[in-house]
Amino acid sequence: MLEKIGFIGLGIMGRPMALNLRKAGYALWVHARRANLMEPLLRAGAVACSSPQAVAEQTETIITMVADTPDVEEVILGKKGIIHGAKAGSLVIDMSSIAALTTRRIAAALAEKGIEMLDAPVSGGDKGAMAGTLAIMVGGKTAQFERALPLFKILGEHIVHVGDHGAGQIAKTCNQIIISQTLAAIGEAFILAKAAGVDPTKVRTALLGGFAGSRILEVHGQRMLERNFQPGFKTKLHHKDIKIALQTAHELGIAIPGTALAAQYLNVLMGTEQGELDSSAMVIAQEQASAIYLADDSLPKDSR
Amino acid sequence: MLEKIGFIGLGIMGRPMALNLRKAGYALWVHARRANLMEPLLRAGAVACSSPQAVAEQTETIITMVADTPDVEEVILGKKGIIHGAKAGSLVIDMSSIAALTTRRIAAALAEKGIEMLDAPVSGGDKGAMAGTLAIMVGGKTAQFERALPLFKILGEHIVHVGDHGAGQIAKTCNQIIISQTLAAIGEAFILAKAAGVDPTKVRTALLGGFAGSRILEVHGQRMLERNFQPGFKTKLHHKDIKIALQTAHELGIAIPGTALAAQYLNVLMGTEQGELDSSAMVIAQEQASAIYLADDSLPKDSR
Repeated sequence: MLEKIGFIGLGIMGRPMALNLRKAGYALWVHARRANLMEPLLRAGAVACSSPQAVAEQTETIITMVADTPDVEEVILGKKGIIHGAKAGSLVIDMSSIAALTTRRIAAALAEKGIEMLDAPVSGGDKGAMAGTLAIMVGGKTAQFERALPLFKILGEHIVHVGDHGAGQIAKTCNQIIISQTLAAIGEAFILAKAAGVDPTKVRTALLGGFAGSRILEVHGQRMLERNFQPGFKTKLHHKDIKIALQTAHELGIAIPGTALAAQYLNVLMGTEQGELDSSAMVIAQEQASAIYLADDSLPKDSR
Repeated sequence: MLEKIGFIGLGIMGRPMALNLRKAGYALWVHARRANLMEPLLRAGAVACSSPQAVAEQTETIITMVADTPDVEEVILGKKGIIHGAKAGSLVIDMSSIAALTTRRIAAALAEKGIEMLDAPVSGGDKGAMAGTLAIMVGGKTAQFERALPLFKILGEHIVHVGDHGAGQIAKTCNQIIISQTLAAIGEAFILAKAAGVDPTKVRTALLGGFAGSRILEVHGQRMLERNFQPGFKTKLHHKDIKIALQTAHELGIAIPGTALAAQYLNVLMGTEQGELDSSAMVIAQEQASAIYLADDSLPKDSR
């Protein structure tokens, strides 16, 4: 018989992940702050728990998948948190995307009670969660990584043990650093082309064959040109992740000016209530900055 | 019998390109400012000419492949330039990477004499030039594009007619805008990982499977980690191309702040006589800025 698994956080990412574990035969004990989010899991045979603490009392492997750094702190270390229910030797796997330095503090607090932890943030969005094809970046001890690997293999495909506690979160932060700037670079390129009277669609096609080619140019470049900003990955989540990147750089005392620049575009989208759009909508903020609009069919700037 | 072709500029890119045309059976009339550069072509049966004008007098299709915007102006419009030798109906194909707005001025000057022009800058480096696998981004009239296509198919593989005069150069500029910022983004990510005590090599592996993946992360990310800055594509050429991007934005009146930021790293490499390194050496300037060195085996910053 398969191990019992605890699962806390059943939102857009957590729900399909938990359902995949259930389909694979695991018995699930679940908790979500909004009780209605548990219903699809309960229909699939999971057991509802009233708190993270209650989940930890029933299971020895507890996965958390919540929105932001304070949520993880609350669920693990808070008043009815996992730490008050978990036994020594239990394993907490936090798959949320949060600040690496906080992850290390949480891992240290759990370790004092003999509770193990892995950070295992994911990339791939709700589609990847549903399909079980997430990329999973894992930080923590090798023995715990191996203990969790059968679960990771159900949830994802590209699974890498990056290093010790926090290393998974650092990899996720690096992921968002690169994606945000690649989006911004493509936006600049398209706007320059448009301003020069050259079709950005043709530019994208010409560039896909060379070193400027990337999945971002392919997928998000197309979204920018089609003005299809259905997420995908929401601006408000990218905004949160880039805040983590800047905060991490602040704490480490290093300069990541390109990320700081990309953050400004995300700020503008948040300030204009466009946080629900796919984060490729960053190009909207760039268009405004140069008063060049990709969808504008009027004459290019240099022929006016 | 195949058409006669003129070829001006026989440096690291032009020479292998001209040789590929010769191998394909074209008769070549060539010119290079430094006469010794012509020798490999002459041994292969090409005819030496004393000036661009002389090349244009002997041929109806003339390819130029020189270093920078002033060189192209000199070779086409200068005292012994192509314009003084070419017949009405001749085609000048400039495959150098130069400022698009200059290309348009040159095309207009040639058009006054009934001389046709295409801009057709390439991507793929000397390896692509030798292998005949260059990406070629073409601007100019459709009829002239079709006229030149048999030549392009010998020189390259990914050939796109982007638009009217200058559109090829704009696409090339966009290419360099995206590559410079992707390099800078990867540098920031690796430095953040290193500062946090996480192995950047593992981060690269974890990220290659997801949306942060790109040919740049694969090839140039690896170069950064191995400190292998053998070009590849030289910093001094990337520096030149980014100067063109910034100049184009200046003339068009648009903002490309991410490109301007990446330019600063290239400036630092040029100012420290590292212009011969592959442009992935940008990470050296980033390391200096944060005093975090990827090759440093000492303790990470946050554990000091």
